[in-house]
Amino acid sequence: MNELTSEQTAATVSRLSTSAADFHQRLDALLDWEGVSDKAVQARVDEILASVKQHGDAAVIDATNRFDRLSATCMDELRLTHEQLKHAYDHLPASQRDALTKAAERIKRYHERQKPNSWQYEEADGTVLGQKVTPLDRAGIYVPGGKAAYPSSVLMNAIPAHVAGVREIVMVVPTPDGVLNQLVLAAAHLAGVDYVFTIGGAQAIAALAYGTESVPRVDKIVGPGNIYVATAKRAVFGQVGIDMIAGPSEIMVVSDGQTDPDWLAMDLFSQAEHDEDAQAILISWDAEHLDAVEAAIERLLPSLEREGIVRESLRNRGALIHCQDAEEAVTIINRVAPEHLELSVAAPEAWLDDIRHAGAIFMGRYTAEALGDYCAGPNHVLPTSGTARFSSPLGVYDFQKRSSIIHCSAAGASELGKIASVLARGESLTAHARSAEYRIRD
Amino acid sequence: MNELTSEQTAATVSRLSTSAADFHQRLDALLDWEGVSDKAVQARVDEILASVKQHGDAAVIDATNRFDRLSATCMDELRLTHEQLKHAYDHLPASQRDALTKAAERIKRYHERQKPNSWQYEEADGTVLGQKVTPLDRAGIYVPGGKAAYPSSVLMNAIPAHVAGVREIVMVVPTPDGVLNQLVLAAAHLAGVDYVFTIGGAQAIAALAYGTESVPRVDKIVGPGNIYVATAKRAVFGQVGIDMIAGPSEIMVVSDGQTDPDWLAMDLFSQAEHDEDAQAILISWDAEHLDAVEAAIERLLPSLEREGIVRESLRNRGALIHCQDAEEAVTIINRVAPEHLELSVAAPEAWLDDIRHAGAIFMGRYTAEALGDYCAGPNHVLPTSGTARFSSPLGVYDFQKRSSIIHCSAAGASELGKIASVLARGESLTAHARSAEYRIRD
Repeated sequence: MNELTSEQTAATVSRLSTSAADFHQRLDALLDWEGVSDKAVQARVDEILASVKQHGDAAVIDATNRFDRLSATCMDELRLTHEQLKHAYDHLPASQRDALTKAAERIKRYHERQKPNSWQYEEADGTVLGQKVTPLDRAGIYVPGGKAAYPSSVLMNAIPAHVAGVREIVMVVPTPDGVLNQLVLAAAHLAGVDYVFTIGGAQAIAALAYGTESVPRVDKIVGPGNIYVATAKRAVFGQVGIDMIAGPSEIMVVSDGQTDPDWLAMDLFSQAEHDEDAQAILISWDAEHLDAVEAAIERLLPSLEREGIVRESLRNRGALIHCQDAEEAVTIINRVAPEHLELSVAAPEAWLDDIRHAGAIFMGRYTAEALGDYCAGPNHVLPTSGTARFSSPLGVYDFQKRSSIIHCSAAGASELGKIASVLARGESLTAHARSAEYRIRD
Repeated sequence: MNELTSEQTAATVSRLSTSAADFHQRLDALLDWEGVSDKAVQARVDEILASVKQHGDAAVIDATNRFDRLSATCMDELRLTHEQLKHAYDHLPASQRDALTKAAERIKRYHERQKPNSWQYEEADGTVLGQKVTPLDRAGIYVPGGKAAYPSSVLMNAIPAHVAGVREIVMVVPTPDGVLNQLVLAAAHLAGVDYVFTIGGAQAIAALAYGTESVPRVDKIVGPGNIYVATAKRAVFGQVGIDMIAGPSEIMVVSDGQTDPDWLAMDLFSQAEHDEDAQAILISWDAEHLDAVEAAIERLLPSLEREGIVRESLRNRGALIHCQDAEEAVTIINRVAPEHLELSVAAPEAWLDDIRHAGAIFMGRYTAEALGDYCAGPNHVLPTSGTARFSSPLGVYDFQKRSSIIHCSAAGASELGKIASVLARGESLTAHARSAEYRIRD
């Protein structure tokens, strides 16, 4: 029965089994994602960056008119006023305004827990060592427009910046053909964004990184975008800070077989509907349960508004994986380091210690990823493509930096001077040694 | 007198005054540093990266033989054993072993304060939110060889990784012409490095990023290197994490006129001796004091082992800046965002709140930067070229990452489901909405 189902539905979503000889090969092929931009994209981005660096506003206006099919003549036409943002917020349907406000409150509450404190300690000889935490002066937030404009992304990017104490938040959002999304504007008002420019692509990244006559230069650029945005962010990294290079969104769901197959199917769809490259994978050690989820997928698919995108995403990059047991599921999780991990199991707490790599962990059958995407509180900007091995969710820490504090007493400097002198001479850096030796007491 | 001195010594170090009409222009010119690699470097690096990705060990051996003038036939010849490291440590002169050990202890003690904790909190309806902190599985440490090999850098890179709980630390250090630095080996032993490969350049970065038959693939690469290393790190970013793109080292010293001019001259030299591109700047509102420091520079310069390098560094990129008062000095500090900031003033604590951007702050006349370079405790891998606006010293946080925890109770999921449903439908993501709605109670 299992094999038959697998063949019948091969076109909808792949079935994998860890017991198959080619499992690792097939998993690798599924996960493979070359996020590197080709030389043509690279060259176009380089050209736009150089042009904005040299010509400022004029180059931004030109590129925006060209790529977003506008006919702006000055930057004022590409800037939204506080009044426009407030008007959008005030005129939202009450249900939307209420949901947005509740979500913002919860996001704020969670991120306030992330605030680190400056600290210092004094040693016996009076030497003080410490670490000072300071917010960035100015942060740039890239909000994708085009295909889908996400007001939730405005909240998820701007609120941590605010909680961190960033002085000015500059938002950019492309508006192809001049179409404004009122929810996005309302979210910008709610999140207290200081500037909004309706620009996007590499030209927006360049404007934020270098500054123009109208766009203030920022210290860090966060937020996801298309391949041009990602390529531009990589190029300006160093000139400004960046958060990460985002790949397609992904989810890995583990089910113990007791969650309603319809729920699981819809959880997978909610990832797959983002775009054709999105990845939705379900793992279970219960083969009949996987059959049931597969049947639910087939049954529910035709009811989806974005059926076409979901089908393509599932066909290209989705999978239902049969594994031996929970232990093997954990091994696969850590191998994949998924952006979103749903533990649709009876006692998810027991799994937590063993999970080393995941952007966000959604625990238990009730915690649908969609709840985290909008309003649970934690950030929805998460490391993709296995980068959870070394990256964290966007957070307050992305909008602050640390400075080391060293304040030697006379006695402390004398003792440290002796150590530094030996080591500096060992490195043949004798001016270092002599600078330290001046502080050694007789 | 001031003008005369300035003209006589124009060749040694520039004198700037904030009251001059062209001050900002001259400061900008001094600070200007184009860290971007040219197309030729980029092309060579791309070639090496592709070659190592495809041919693994063979490509690493080939590049190493070529660039470091070796004749290795297998990777075993480019790997140091634990016995070699221990032997180096055991055979150090006692003074060096002692200094290295004391420095390591102090660095460890400071970095232990940086360890963050996982946390979670429970809401009234039983929903639990939190953040899980997990160390990286494997970290790669790049230690420059060539011109100057720095054992202190081994400690500063490896100890935070250890404190973070990283499972395996892989160090690479080029050994041009096969010359091994025993202090570097001893430091690797002391810091508990797991693997040491005597490889460098883009080929070492590629080996760490992609893994080869012999070199384990790491999750993040830290440590400074030359332009090939920096270019390679930028290229592999995303595949692995990286710490930062390092530029030339710099110091900004502020003096209130009461510090011994010889001390200040030597503090500036200790930065300038690193290399010709290093930057040493002194600011004071006491013009006669600046004259005295300039005289000390002239007098002490001929006594330096690295006089040639120091002269060129001071001539190209050094400056003595006369400002109006302490407030103006703070403005310049925040404008420059120096890697190292020495506050050689009577009450440095009073300055701290106003300083927004600096990698490390050395407070008071006794705290020579050299003490921090080796043994005070805080890290000496610091953000350069103004990147202290958004970057932090290397730290334990570089070797850990966070995962968000969301565990909704049935009641919590029901309430959150209502909010998520409204927002998801506002974004036309109806599978998101339906996934959330399944969790709403009747």
